[in-house]
Amino acid sequence: MLPESILREAQSEFFELSGSGMSLLEMSHRSPLYDEIHEGARARSKSVFEVPDEFEVLFIQGGAMLQFSMVPMNFLADDVSGAYVDSGAWASKALADARMYGEAYAAWDGSDVSPSRMPDQGEVEIRPDTRYLHVTSNETIGGVRMVEWPEVDIPLIGDMSSDYMSRPIPWDRFDLVYGGVQKNLGPAGMAVVFVRRSILEETSKHLGTYLRYDIHADNRSLFNTPPVFTIWMTGKMLSWIESEGGLAEMERRTNQRAAKVYDAIDSSGGYYTNPVAVRDRSLTNVVFNLANAELETRFVAQAAKNDLVNLKGHRSVGGVRASLYNAMPMAGVDALVAFMDDFQAGNV
Amino acid sequence: MLPESILREAQSEFFELSGSGMSLLEMSHRSPLYDEIHEGARARSKSVFEVPDEFEVLFIQGGAMLQFSMVPMNFLADDVSGAYVDSGAWASKALADARMYGEAYAAWDGSDVSPSRMPDQGEVEIRPDTRYLHVTSNETIGGVRMVEWPEVDIPLIGDMSSDYMSRPIPWDRFDLVYGGVQKNLGPAGMAVVFVRRSILEETSKHLGTYLRYDIHADNRSLFNTPPVFTIWMTGKMLSWIESEGGLAEMERRTNQRAAKVYDAIDSSGGYYTNPVAVRDRSLTNVVFNLANAELETRFVAQAAKNDLVNLKGHRSVGGVRASLYNAMPMAGVDALVAFMDDFQAGNV
Repeated sequence: MLPESILREAQSEFFELSGSGMSLLEMSHRSPLYDEIHEGARARSKSVFEVPDEFEVLFIQGGAMLQFSMVPMNFLADDVSGAYVDSGAWASKALADARMYGEAYAAWDGSDVSPSRMPDQGEVEIRPDTRYLHVTSNETIGGVRMVEWPEVDIPLIGDMSSDYMSRPIPWDRFDLVYGGVQKNLGPAGMAVVFVRRSILEETSKHLGTYLRYDIHADNRSLFNTPPVFTIWMTGKMLSWIESEGGLAEMERRTNQRAAKVYDAIDSSGGYYTNPVAVRDRSLTNVVFNLANAELETRFVAQAAKNDLVNLKGHRSVGGVRASLYNAMPMAGVDALVAFMDDFQAGNV
Repeated sequence: MLPESILREAQSEFFELSGSGMSLLEMSHRSPLYDEIHEGARARSKSVFEVPDEFEVLFIQGGAMLQFSMVPMNFLADDVSGAYVDSGAWASKALADARMYGEAYAAWDGSDVSPSRMPDQGEVEIRPDTRYLHVTSNETIGGVRMVEWPEVDIPLIGDMSSDYMSRPIPWDRFDLVYGGVQKNLGPAGMAVVFVRRSILEETSKHLGTYLRYDIHADNRSLFNTPPVFTIWMTGKMLSWIESEGGLAEMERRTNQRAAKVYDAIDSSGGYYTNPVAVRDRSLTNVVFNLANAELETRFVAQAAKNDLVNLKGHRSVGGVRASLYNAMPMAGVDALVAFMDDFQAGNV
């Protein structure tokens, strides 16, 4: 979901932007008007995410999925490997892709843990000559979130796609942070990547142009034609977040939204259950189960009739999943909680 | 430029699509309504481009620039190399990127030819064990277009970014054709790739997920979150092209637009000159010179005052360049030609 005010504003500017006589979609990405939009989105990305000066912000097409390749391509070499916290479906994909480009291993394997959780401090095992530890801040399918960043003495690289803008990022621990914009920031079509400037000299130069972080950085993400519409909308979303109170307010709302749904689960007397360790419960993807699959199917179907859509759990795990991204209004959360009560009362 | 009717239509549907209660930008890419848009754009790509059944259409983010890497990554191997017709700035970039992934060479080197031209039949030299010959159908900076596809006995791979939808493609000669959409088809944010289905078994499987043609093909370009807005707009542009008379009509208009400007150049008594061999003149990017750089600067500045914008030649070559993509109305071409006459009369 996107805020109504942002959609209305974009709609009104869609045909002609700022008296320019043309649509944004028709503008050269080398024009002064586009450059203002581009630089505005870049600057706002850094200010809203509270990113220190030593990081560069990049807009790269291909979403998080292309980053799964770009990270190992740019950072792995014959003498260094990549460590991955294998915390679920997304981390596993990132690790599998990394193995195509060098040595990569699971520094913690979460595939067998039950109930689901993230690793405890000390459980992450780093081998010698490891260049980075890759972490997935939130797993949308398992509904698990990394709360305690592993205390290791190598830099972290973080996939934050599904909880970007829901909490502060400890920048001193990271060399690179990336995320697709489509969950919390804008329409699908790119990743926002923050990279520590000092490491750009060390990234691989033996790659095609589009796949090199240093080239995107040196050219302000304008080496090739950028996805202008996605950048424009992302800039608008960042302005909206700023006007609503910034990252602190987004975090407060994220906590509040999730707390309401987890309270409903925990106070249901076991009617609804969540399989995740309390510390590691996702705040953006709340998964829960009912007594059996038949009841879960009925829950999802009846919810849809009440305009509560997209509640079906991922096909690989089943159950129910409520995704509570930034633009979800609190009224939507309240409606879900009320429906959960009603459903329980009517389906004992 | 985009047709006004398409921009108006997109604007009116922007806030809420088809009575769905939400904007396209908020829809799950797994929803039935988005699937209809996605499949519509895929089907229309094939019908409008007159693509035979044995080709698959893919929507891949990263534009032509990412294709410069994906082509050699997918097709090169230790025992085969890639040949490139080095016809200008874009071909040179494609060749340089290919060299990062295997053996690649210039089967024809156009960097020294003057006046600019494409190779004649017999000038393209293919070495043994070459997997493909990569051609750039149109060079936007040099204003050169490939009219005669090289007669070689290996498959062609074509970058058609800058003259997509301006003429038919001889599909029997190609294994793969790609192009960024932003010149003739839609807003920046992806490439449309046509790949012969039978060769997908031979493409490399030792790549990250996003970089594998076979995975995009097997998943109808829905393996990851697709750039829904760009696909939506591209579908609209394809419908518009269909309703205007399809590829044949686009080709007729392309020829007519270019002919008007070249006629103005050729009938100027040498006041305006075009450096390209007549056979190989680009129909989408008409480059020309005046007597000196000072006069060219004055031409571009005065044109801009007459609402004729973006006429400055690329900084690497200077001069003047008129880009005549599909959505450029004939009135715009006529205005340019009239201005050229006026300028010549006033600046002898």
